[in-house]
Amino acid sequence: MDGAMSIKIYGVPLSQPVRAVLWPCVIKRVAFSFEAAVPGMGGRIGTKGPDFRAKFPLGTVPALEDKDVHLSESVAILSYLSDKFSWHDIYPTDVLERARVHEYMSWSHRNTREASTRVFGPHVRPDARPAGTSWRDEGLKSVEATCKLIDSYWLQRTPFLAGHAPTIADFSAYEELAQLGPRFGKLVDFSSHPNLSRWIEQMASLPHHDAMHASLTELGPLDPLLALDAKQLGAKLGAATKAGTAAITAAVKAAEKATPAPA
Amino acid sequence: MDGAMSIKIYGVPLSQPVRAVLWPCVIKRVAFSFEAAVPGMGGRIGTKGPDFRAKFPLGTVPALEDKDVHLSESVAILSYLSDKFSWHDIYPTDVLERARVHEYMSWSHRNTREASTRVFGPHVRPDARPAGTSWRDEGLKSVEATCKLIDSYWLQRTPFLAGHAPTIADFSAYEELAQLGPRFGKLVDFSSHPNLSRWIEQMASLPHHDAMHASLTELGPLDPLLALDAKQLGAKLGAATKAGTAAITAAVKAAEKATPAPA
Repeated sequence: MDGAMSIKIYGVPLSQPVRAVLWPCVIKRVAFSFEAAVPGMGGRIGTKGPDFRAKFPLGTVPALEDKDVHLSESVAILSYLSDKFSWHDIYPTDVLERARVHEYMSWSHRNTREASTRVFGPHVRPDARPAGTSWRDEGLKSVEATCKLIDSYWLQRTPFLAGHAPTIADFSAYEELAQLGPRFGKLVDFSSHPNLSRWIEQMASLPHHDAMHASLTELGPLDPLLALDAKQLGAKLGAATKAGTAAITAAVKAAEKATPAPA
Repeated sequence: MDGAMSIKIYGVPLSQPVRAVLWPCVIKRVAFSFEAAVPGMGGRIGTKGPDFRAKFPLGTVPALEDKDVHLSESVAILSYLSDKFSWHDIYPTDVLERARVHEYMSWSHRNTREASTRVFGPHVRPDARPAGTSWRDEGLKSVEATCKLIDSYWLQRTPFLAGHAPTIADFSAYEELAQLGPRFGKLVDFSSHPNLSRWIEQMASLPHHDAMHASLTELGPLDPLLALDAKQLGAKLGAATKAGTAAITAAVKAAEKATPAPA
């Protein structure tokens, strides 16, 4: 571990792309500090605040600070860290294997990502609920189609999305999908997708899984959130953020104390 | 050029991600054949047809066939071809430079891409027009915000999106944006974005630009298309597709006859 702790990762534990970056970092025992950057908020810790925008004009999380490097977009951050630290297992160097990672990561933006923008998001942000009552059914339908394609295409061919071991594609996909499943939000049942079900369990057995998802455990099922008023929802989100941040910080510290990873 | 012509690229010339793949291939003089695959159509040449789906379960264009490799998603195809043929100029190997390519390519899916899904698309596909009359104004507003961010972030820092020369990020971005500009669709004026305006002209001066965009020239301004009935619009799209395919095929042949590219 680099004691200088030059790497900072900004975001909140309830953000899917943030978790997709944090989790491999903890597994790989890269030294980093987790800095609060709250989407939609201004001020000192908001992504709309001048401090954050000066460093990250795109205004999105996760965001990476590595000395004088400032980088946005989880896909770019994951490939940057993988290239920098030679994480060839989670970002293969073989031309075709790497292309499979990119194929999924690219496709996911307008597919798997919908699990968060169309279903998870509106549950926790009433302001993000589209007009009309059909948003939830339509969102769940799109998630179902996404699950079907992941099950019958990528996971039919190989045990993980881009080969025989988890890659950055798997970390990204898991964060968008698992949050809705039986372990957390309880909105989607994966049992009609045998390859996906098996993959979900294998991802959930990776090191630090529970700590990295403590925010989702604290948040609990998503349906009851629809009945909360703004104050109650705010308290719930605050508790989940607090629990998630504490668990992630503890996991980072535990990883730091463990035997250093091979260079 | 490899006389075996093992590479096939499927799509239609009016598709932005298809052009983003074809153009660098012609510049780099890779031998390939351009195969018709029409989005939304079934049958022998449609992306919904059984022949296409058997090879490309995602059902999207562009799609790449390279002997037994079948790959979807323009980002994955471009990075695959770049890695395979060592196109290090358009897909840098430096860790940070490559991360900048990925940062743009990843961000673009839910930003620059909207220029096509929210503005260009509905003009040529009445079935893709969202309900209400505001789709066009809202779409143009999102394009304006995208242009502003590209102008003030990426193109403020470097002459091209990820450095001092065009990369796969620039080819992708140009295809989504230029189609709406003064040269083609005439819906967006880039003049309030100085860096973007300069970049558009530099991209337009790259080899084979006019041939690769003959479909857009034939299609002409996008506004008059709104007044056409289904039959008239179909004829217009057919003529643009025919002109684009002929120009691209001629450009591929001309590139084949030129001095072979260094291995």
